Amino acid sequence: MIDSETLYLIGAQNMNDNKNISRAVIKRLPRYYTYLKQLQEDGINRISSEELSRLMGVTASQIRQDLNHFGGFGQQGYGYNVAYLYEEIGKILGLERVYSMIIIGAGNLGQALARYSHFRQRGIEVKALFDVKEELIGKTEGGVEILHIDSLEDYVKENPVEIATIAIPKTQAVRVAPRLVALDIKAVWNFSHVDLKFPEDVVVENVHLSESLMRLTYNYNSKYPLN
Amino acid sequence: MIDSETLYLIGAQNMNDNKNISRAVIKRLPRYYTYLKQLQEDGINRISSEELSRLMGVTASQIRQDLNHFGGFGQQGYGYNVAYLYEEIGKILGLERVYSMIIIGAGNLGQALARYSHFRQRGIEVKALFDVKEELIGKTEGGVEILHIDSLEDYVKENPVEIATIAIPKTQAVRVAPRLVALDIKAVWNFSHVDLKFPEDVVVENVHLSESLMRLTYNYNSKYPLN
Repeated sequence: MIDSETLYLIGAQNMNDNKNISRAVIKRLPRYYTYLKQLQEDGINRISSEELSRLMGVTASQIRQDLNHFGGFGQQGYGYNVAYLYEEIGKILGLERVYSMIIIGAGNLGQALARYSHFRQRGIEVKALFDVKEELIGKTEGGVEILHIDSLEDYVKENPVEIATIAIPKTQAVRVAPRLVALDIKAVWNFSHVDLKFPEDVVVENVHLSESLMRLTYNYNSKYPLN
Repeated sequence: MIDSETLYLIGAQNMNDNKNISRAVIKRLPRYYTYLKQLQEDGINRISSEELSRLMGVTASQIRQDLNHFGGFGQQGYGYNVAYLYEEIGKILGLERVYSMIIIGAGNLGQALARYSHFRQRGIEVKALFDVKEELIGKTEGGVEILHIDSLEDYVKENPVEIATIAIPKTQAVRVAPRLVALDIKAVWNFSHVDLKFPEDVVVENVHLSESLMRLTYNYNSKYPLN
């Protein structure tokens, strides 16, 4: 029987090898991370691939394959060390850092995002909201001040910003995008309904809610057609 | 040269053959639909695969392959009929119907969704919001009344509901899910941070915002590590 500390060291060695983890596995890591967090909150310290399989609805062999990258864990009759796995996956996902985020758009969506408590757990600090609506300027939302979009350049020059979240309609979004590029912001979380064009060196993650809704209506309509 | 009406008829015949369109193409249709809508709004009636390719950032040959399913369109030097293509793709996506939606959770996210004007363009009518917070009950948000979650069963028995949107924390979501199943609701748009378990006959679309954010931080951190 290998003790917990030895396992930690085996795992830690493997961690130096991040680059060898395939893109496909990386894509699944946020899902594992979410479930491992839940297990920790539920006070569960160890879990077998079979239990994790039932919980996540993927095959146990897929889980063993994926988590195999994390060293000597999940041994027969031993199970995964939840806290360790959670921490290591968090490191790979870049969640040990703190990221400063600004949100462009203080409408309902921007406000919902500013209040999103999950951000802080992921090392995201929402620093400011920006809007054009005079009646919103100077107010605070989720403890974050709403500033006028005209002050975007001044703000970013004085405050380091890693992530800009775009929560405004597409017609405005296409005008804000080049300003973010000019300000050297390298990560954009885009909720507007267009794929905004950014230079190669900007990392972009698009959330197209209406496309998600269309997938839902498509699948529903296929299964339950009107006639 | 084939005239517009003949083209319409060729297209219409092909439309009877929806089943032959592959899942991969179907997955891309919401994206086409979004761009075609934008083109219509911009007053553009025809577009070549090359122009659409530049706009959407996919190859022209991919576009020709995908839209080939829609009959005799996109002929050399002729281009696609934007309005027709938009309408036909909308039919396939089930957007000719009207869907009644309820939103579970009248917090910031639920409120943002209730106000989402894009829903109405997609045939989605938000009928009611549900929450537990006494101070919210009876208020309206985006023209939609907030009801107590205890009245969910009574409401759904009297009002047809196709889609339930879940915009509450996971601990509450796991308790609401079985109630939706018992009420025979067959489409769920899930924003909570868990993959809720539903029977096979329920169509589910998950929107995991924190997973999207983790993909962003992962990609950013890989490209711009701290040291």
